[in-house]
Amino acid sequence: MRLSTVRIADDRVTSAARQEGDELVLLPYADVGALLATGDDWHERAASADGERLPLAESSLAPLVPHPNKIVCLGLNYATHIKEMGRPTPAHPTLFAKYDGSLIGAHDDIHTPPVSDDLDWEAELAVVVGRPGRHVPRERALEYVAGYTVANDITVRDWQHRTREFLSGKTFEATTPVGPALVTPDELPPGASGLDISCSVDGHTMQKSNTADLLFDVAETVAYISTIITLLPGDLILTGTPGGVGAGRDPKVFLRPGQELITTVEGIGELRNTVIKEQL
Amino acid sequence: MRLSTVRIADDRVTSAARQEGDELVLLPYADVGALLATGDDWHERAASADGERLPLAESSLAPLVPHPNKIVCLGLNYATHIKEMGRPTPAHPTLFAKYDGSLIGAHDDIHTPPVSDDLDWEAELAVVVGRPGRHVPRERALEYVAGYTVANDITVRDWQHRTREFLSGKTFEATTPVGPALVTPDELPPGASGLDISCSVDGHTMQKSNTADLLFDVAETVAYISTIITLLPGDLILTGTPGGVGAGRDPKVFLRPGQELITTVEGIGELRNTVIKEQL
Repeated sequence: MRLSTVRIADDRVTSAARQEGDELVLLPYADVGALLATGDDWHERAASADGERLPLAESSLAPLVPHPNKIVCLGLNYATHIKEMGRPTPAHPTLFAKYDGSLIGAHDDIHTPPVSDDLDWEAELAVVVGRPGRHVPRERALEYVAGYTVANDITVRDWQHRTREFLSGKTFEATTPVGPALVTPDELPPGASGLDISCSVDGHTMQKSNTADLLFDVAETVAYISTIITLLPGDLILTGTPGGVGAGRDPKVFLRPGQELITTVEGIGELRNTVIKEQL
Repeated sequence: MRLSTVRIADDRVTSAARQEGDELVLLPYADVGALLATGDDWHERAASADGERLPLAESSLAPLVPHPNKIVCLGLNYATHIKEMGRPTPAHPTLFAKYDGSLIGAHDDIHTPPVSDDLDWEAELAVVVGRPGRHVPRERALEYVAGYTVANDITVRDWQHRTREFLSGKTFEATTPVGPALVTPDELPPGASGLDISCSVDGHTMQKSNTADLLFDVAETVAYISTIITLLPGDLILTGTPGGVGAGRDPKVFLRPGQELITTVEGIGELRNTVIKEQL
């Protein structure tokens, strides 16, 4: 099953939706996060509900979960990216946060902020949490996953490195596309492992890797985060990016207004976003 | 005016409340965050509303804003703390996040997680945002402040330093007291500057400083964060801690189960929390 959050009513509100072929069937929940928050039988209700149908091709997708309780991001989780950033292999997952104001839909414009031109790409597999969980053992961790989606952890590199904490460069307004759909685990390999992941800018491939190369896999990541804090339905976990980011190149390359960024994870889908310059 | 969020109905729900002498007057909002989200006239409505009264001394305080859209924390914002942590003076505010699952009420127990015994204190002045704001100029930034409160940015030191990102050690479940009240700016000096701030463990003073020593003051901090992302009503900004934390001592000192931590900011109030060990 593939679920999305779609803008309706002249984009003033959103609705959760189930994909059926080239149509979206609207579900009676404000978004995929609200659906997941209704309890463990969300899957059956999402699969069986009927509602208004919209052509998928003409739909405006909102962030898959517009207001997650938390967005947890992993840094340094592919060997190729660790090397290009000049960091040692970490013994533990490197966690940082984003706020939900940074999220955009799968086809929305990425806003380059007025204060920087150093916008960089980071294609990522993202996990959507389906059930509350704390102290989840690794061997049961995948039971807490509602599904998988695609994200691009767009980073304002100069602000990321202004201080020793990543947050400032990771949570600029309207920078982080997430979608186009939550794909349930039954449609993917266990832990969404072994999927090709890639990112291109104006048709030039910049990142190309496979989720089998994750240093900390999905089960280990879910278990680890739950050691710290209770995971909640709709929480997003961005699992880190492979090598090939702009800051890792010589010379460095950053996104320019007008460029089209395409981010794909095999079997899940594609983000297609145009870069614009935000005006003050 | 002093506002709190209080647990009612056998602690199953919360209510915003206005302090009047030794009583709390319940307001028709679920918590202080919900009150602030109702719009710019929240102040008049909070001041004039009447409701059921509870004795303040017998009330159970919830986190002042239980579910803020975001919690933004500053590291390294007092010269004495920068020195004890062995860091250079930063040119920009060091920002990191917490998730709301870490928040507890002003008199709740602080949970030492099963995985660590290195729980440390960080007394902080906290700002509660009152209005949505992006690209807020510094000279207007204080207009976006609903009021001030007290927080203790309790830190699991070994997990903070497991990786180069602070988040893991900063957002453990049920560790961060915030309260007891939002105090509106008219009752305090501009920007809540010049207030004594202190922290004691079992009656021994561990931190003693003044908010006049903030490296980045409240106005500058609010303006800076709004450069990155839209501030929303109820957002919490923890402004950093002065010197005297346990990890900065020789030998290092950490909190032990049974100890009582008291955190005060002059003119705002006091947090009084007992440390307990969380059992698996």
